[in-house]
Amino acid sequence: MAKALLTADAARSLVGSVDAFLFDCDGVIWKGDELIQGVPETLELLRKLGKKLVFVTNNSRKSRRQYSKKFKTLGLEVTEEEIFTSSFAAAMFLKLNNFSPEKKVYVVGEDGILDELKLAGFECFGGPEDGKKNIMLEANFYFDHDKNVGAVVVGLDQYFNYYKMQYASLCIRENPGCLFIATNRDPTGHMTSAQEWPGAGTMVAAVSCSVQKEPIVVGKPSSFLMDFLLKSFNLETSRMCMVGDRLDTDILFGQNTGCKTLLVLSGVTTLPDLQDASNTIHPDLYTNSVHDLVKLLQQ
Amino acid sequence: MAKALLTADAARSLVGSVDAFLFDCDGVIWKGDELIQGVPETLELLRKLGKKLVFVTNNSRKSRRQYSKKFKTLGLEVTEEEIFTSSFAAAMFLKLNNFSPEKKVYVVGEDGILDELKLAGFECFGGPEDGKKNIMLEANFYFDHDKNVGAVVVGLDQYFNYYKMQYASLCIRENPGCLFIATNRDPTGHMTSAQEWPGAGTMVAAVSCSVQKEPIVVGKPSSFLMDFLLKSFNLETSRMCMVGDRLDTDILFGQNTGCKTLLVLSGVTTLPDLQDASNTIHPDLYTNSVHDLVKLLQQ
Repeated sequence: MAKALLTADAARSLVGSVDAFLFDCDGVIWKGDELIQGVPETLELLRKLGKKLVFVTNNSRKSRRQYSKKFKTLGLEVTEEEIFTSSFAAAMFLKLNNFSPEKKVYVVGEDGILDELKLAGFECFGGPEDGKKNIMLEANFYFDHDKNVGAVVVGLDQYFNYYKMQYASLCIRENPGCLFIATNRDPTGHMTSAQEWPGAGTMVAAVSCSVQKEPIVVGKPSSFLMDFLLKSFNLETSRMCMVGDRLDTDILFGQNTGCKTLLVLSGVTTLPDLQDASNTIHPDLYTNSVHDLVKLLQQ
Repeated sequence: MAKALLTADAARSLVGSVDAFLFDCDGVIWKGDELIQGVPETLELLRKLGKKLVFVTNNSRKSRRQYSKKFKTLGLEVTEEEIFTSSFAAAMFLKLNNFSPEKKVYVVGEDGILDELKLAGFECFGGPEDGKKNIMLEANFYFDHDKNVGAVVVGLDQYFNYYKMQYASLCIRENPGCLFIATNRDPTGHMTSAQEWPGAGTMVAAVSCSVQKEPIVVGKPSSFLMDFLLKSFNLETSRMCMVGDRLDTDILFGQNTGCKTLLVLSGVTTLPDLQDASNTIHPDLYTNSVHDLVKLLQQ
C-alpha cells in the first residue's frame, strides 16, 4: 500500500475520483472542544463541489443528536443523518440482529449509548447512574444481576468502576446467549483538548479480561458501520475517501472497507509514527490537516 | 507433563519427596472469608511431619501483617515470614532493583500495596484515597501528575476509576524510565465466598491498553516471587510442592520454577476445565481439596 504526501495534483485527483468524504471527528474536525483550523472552509468547499460528507466517530459519549448540537456550537451545519457514531452503531447492530425488545441491555458507558439504545426502542440501564454505586467486598456478599439482560454494550466511560465490571461480567458469563458488544477498542482519545485520555479500549480490555472472551466490535475498524452506512446511502466504497488521524482505526477501517484513505497529522498520529519501521498500516495519502485540501485545490 | 489423581501411594511418595509445601490461599485454604474444610488438620499434619509451609498469594489487597491476622481469625497460626503476597513482591522488586527512595510510587490498588511499599521505605500515594476522586472531562481540562513518580504498581482495586487510569497512564507514558509493575494478571478471584469477581488482571489490562505497554509481573506465575523466596529460605525447588487451584497462575508458577505441582479442585478450576482438550497446563497430581492429603496419608 503506497503512502504519499498530498500534493496539489493528488488533491485534484482525489477530489475528482470520490463522491463522498468520510471524516473522523476527534483529531480531524476538532480536538476536545476546539475546532481544528480551516475545517469550515474545507467542508464548505467540498459541499460546493457536490461531495457527500459523512462524519464517522468511535466516540460513544454522545448520541447523534448531541453530536449535531456540538457541530452547531462549533459553527458547522451537520445533520444527524450525516453522523455515524459507535453508540448509534451498537443500537443498529442489535436492531439488525433482531435483538428481542423483551430483553434488556446493560451499558458500561455514557449517555450517548443509553440515548441511542432508547431511540432504537430497547430497554437499557447502567451508564452514569451506576458510576455512583460502590461495592463492599465482604465475606458473604452476593452481587445479584438481572437474568433478563441479553446484551452488554461497553464504550468509553469516565464513570467506570468495579460495580460495573462485575455487573457486566455476571451478565456475559451467566446469562445464556448474552452478547458482549464493544463500541470500539481505541486505547486513547483526546477527551479534552489539552491531552490524551484512556479510551473505550481500556474499559473493553478490563471486561474482556474478566470474562475471558472477545467482544463484537461495532465501531471502526470493524466493517459493521460501513455495511450499515452503505445500506443508508447509495454509494460505492471505491468512490469514498476515509479521512482520519488514527492508523489502527480510521485508516484500517477505510482499507478494510475498500475506501481511499487520507491520514491527517492533526490528531494522535505523528509523521515519525507513520514512518516508523514497525508501522504496517499505510494510508494512500497523508497531509498535516484537512485545511490542506482547500489550500492545494486553490493552487 | 503427567496429571494423575492423588492416591494414598502418590500422597506418601509426594510427602516423602518434598521438604516444603507452597500453598495458594484463595480456593485452597479459604474461599473469601470461609475456611475450606480440613485445612487445619492438613497444615497440622504437615508441620508434624517436619514440612516447611509457605503461603503464596497473588491477592494484593492485604499486607503480610494483615494476612497473618486473617489466618489467626480463621484459627490458623501462620507467621508473617511464612506469607508471600504479590503486594510484598512488588515492594521487594523495587528494593532488589535499587529503586531510588527519592522517587515516588503511584498505586492503583488497595492498602496491602501501600502498606508493603511503606514498610520497605518507599514514598507512595494513590490507592483507596484516589478512588474518591472524579474527573470532569471539560474542554480545556488539563490533568496534572507528579513528575517524580518512578514506578506505577497496579493490583486488584475495588476503588478503580477513570482518575486512576489517567494518573497511572500519564506517569508511565510521560515520566522517563517510569516502571509499570503488575502484582499479577489473574482475570478473576473469589473476593467474596459467594462468587467470582474481576481480578487484578482486569485493572492491569485497562492500564496496559491505555499505555500500549506490557507490565513487569511480580506475582504468580512470574518467577520473581520464587527467586525472592529462594533467597529467604534454604530450599531447593525440586523438593517443593506448589499446591493451588488455578492452572494459569499456581500450577504454571510451580512448573516454571521447577516445583512439583498439586491441583486442588476446591477453587476456580473444575475437573472438566482440567480435562478439557484446550487445556495445556497439567499438574503432576490433582485432588479435590488439601484435606485429601490427611485422609490419604492416614489410610
